[in-house]
Amino acid sequence: MSDRRFDVTAIGNAIVDVIASADEALLLEHRLRKGAMSLVDAAEAERLYRIMGPGRETSGGSAANTVAWIAALGGRAAYIGKVADDQLGDVFTHDIRATGVTYDTPPLNEGLSTARCLIFVTPDAHRTMQTFLGATTRLGPEDVNMDYIARSRIVYLEGYLWDQPRAKKAMRDAALRAQASGVKVSLTLSDAFCVDRFRDEFLELVEHHVDLLFANEAEILSLYQAQTFDEALQRVRPHCEVAALTRSALGSVVLSGDEVHVIDAEPGVRVVDTTGAGDAYAAGFLYAYIQGCDLATCGRMGGVMAAEVIGHYGARPESDVRALAAGVLSGRTTRGGPTRTT
Amino acid sequence: MSDRRFDVTAIGNAIVDVIASADEALLLEHRLRKGAMSLVDAAEAERLYRIMGPGRETSGGSAANTVAWIAALGGRAAYIGKVADDQLGDVFTHDIRATGVTYDTPPLNEGLSTARCLIFVTPDAHRTMQTFLGATTRLGPEDVNMDYIARSRIVYLEGYLWDQPRAKKAMRDAALRAQASGVKVSLTLSDAFCVDRFRDEFLELVEHHVDLLFANEAEILSLYQAQTFDEALQRVRPHCEVAALTRSALGSVVLSGDEVHVIDAEPGVRVVDTTGAGDAYAAGFLYAYIQGCDLATCGRMGGVMAAEVIGHYGARPESDVRALAAGVLSGRTTRGGPTRTT
Repeated sequence: MSDRRFDVTAIGNAIVDVIASADEALLLEHRLRKGAMSLVDAAEAERLYRIMGPGRETSGGSAANTVAWIAALGGRAAYIGKVADDQLGDVFTHDIRATGVTYDTPPLNEGLSTARCLIFVTPDAHRTMQTFLGATTRLGPEDVNMDYIARSRIVYLEGYLWDQPRAKKAMRDAALRAQASGVKVSLTLSDAFCVDRFRDEFLELVEHHVDLLFANEAEILSLYQAQTFDEALQRVRPHCEVAALTRSALGSVVLSGDEVHVIDAEPGVRVVDTTGAGDAYAAGFLYAYIQGCDLATCGRMGGVMAAEVIGHYGARPESDVRALAAGVLSGRTTRGGPTRTT
Repeated sequence: MSDRRFDVTAIGNAIVDVIASADEALLLEHRLRKGAMSLVDAAEAERLYRIMGPGRETSGGSAANTVAWIAALGGRAAYIGKVADDQLGDVFTHDIRATGVTYDTPPLNEGLSTARCLIFVTPDAHRTMQTFLGATTRLGPEDVNMDYIARSRIVYLEGYLWDQPRAKKAMRDAALRAQASGVKVSLTLSDAFCVDRFRDEFLELVEHHVDLLFANEAEILSLYQAQTFDEALQRVRPHCEVAALTRSALGSVVLSGDEVHVIDAEPGVRVVDTTGAGDAYAAGFLYAYIQGCDLATCGRMGGVMAAEVIGHYGARPESDVRALAAGVLSGRTTRGGPTRTT
């Protein structure tokens, strides 16, 4: 079956981000775990919003960011995630559709409001996230459009969803269907603490179901309980067709069988807000991968998109990313072998 | 009575901005009047939102922006404006309170949702605004806290409210109460087309009730149906204690009796989005005015704040504006006469 409607279909938590500047003292006073994503209930979200500075609202959600970027780059993408039928749900739906992503998961009509993520950005540009999951907790297997899955080239799964049993089931169903349909399965580990909570499940998934793995350094160390980056790198190498490990200012390392590429970070980037850096990297990487680029080019494409997103507040692209991509592609080579399926 | 709780109390339309990039062709296709603020109903707002690109949501509203800036600068400010009891109303309320502004107008509990302004930013950084007024149309005299008015040094009124009869009544009541309490009355004309709709009323207001007038070039030309800037300048001169006329890249002209100051725009500003430039100018001007600065310094302070806001998307301050203000004040002189009332 080579009728591939989408380059990438992603499943994730549909979230609206509320981004505000914060100083380190505020994180300490309210015991916010710097750099991590923590889950909070509605009351705690309400309390934290009250102590937060003036905000900017933009659509977020890790996998949603990634497909929004892929569409902005010119790729064909679909998204599966749950909002509520409320104003923030409208904002999320508008923004992801406006990028060209196909998004038609039915909104939740009662009980819980659209998820939001309070993002505290410290002067060092690091982000600390407090997420109220709201309607996303109602995502279940019935929301997964299996036709989209089967007609994609890549399915992209967000590790954050492992915190919800029904969402996890939806992810597993999608992965199995993808494998049965010759669709590549990619996974982002999302968060070191999330990996810590579900290590055995992630290990099983990575070893048996994942073709392309995305992880940052903290996440891959957590997955293998490794002490050094190199130790984690050696551990992951046999398990995935491709692994892309991001290291912030140290760039990324891309692995595939015997291949190992060490890609430097883009130079001269003014860092404002690191929110969405991993999501943009995954988008750039997958976009180049879809074009049949060699893995070094995929890694460079990821790095260029990450550099764009950390230069401003918010996790979605703000500049002409197709021009950025064309700049990377002008120096590309092509991967060996017939990997294009359309 | 010298018990002045607030430096500035403002009355305006409480609006959440939705900002997206747009090209000129889209404005033409949908007949959007470039550079202006147009009012749209709920259905048209819905239609325009669908054709709009991915957005950033930030709290807006002209007078609300101004008091948010004044509070960010360290001034004491209050705001009167109407949101609905919904998610966007929560966003507006949070953001303005987080700047330190006192805001306690009761939200609307039924019928209309919080106002939003769809802002299309073209590559030349100009903004074209389509406003759905929603809950703001329910602002009435009963919402004006007369104690706040009487205990302020300056009351700041937004011309946009003239489109709503009950809001207009609220404004007039506030102006009369201010005058009776020795509180200065300031007005921003807001929009040339709004001035055109209510020219006689604005003329009467300016001639009899306004101490400090803010207007851009198009607005002051519209008010006096003048052909040249200089003609408008000569017309307004006898009527206000102070008039500050802004001219975009040409800077501003500040008038008071025999005084005329021609203030150049800040040099070397990279213009991203002109949304809120006039609001930030008014805030800088009023903040310096409150400090007892001479009018040239007030104009420079306005220009510096306008330069900050046009360097990024959104109408609220993003950098350390107190440091910017300190830079201006380090070169200040003082107005003659006892204008401080506290």
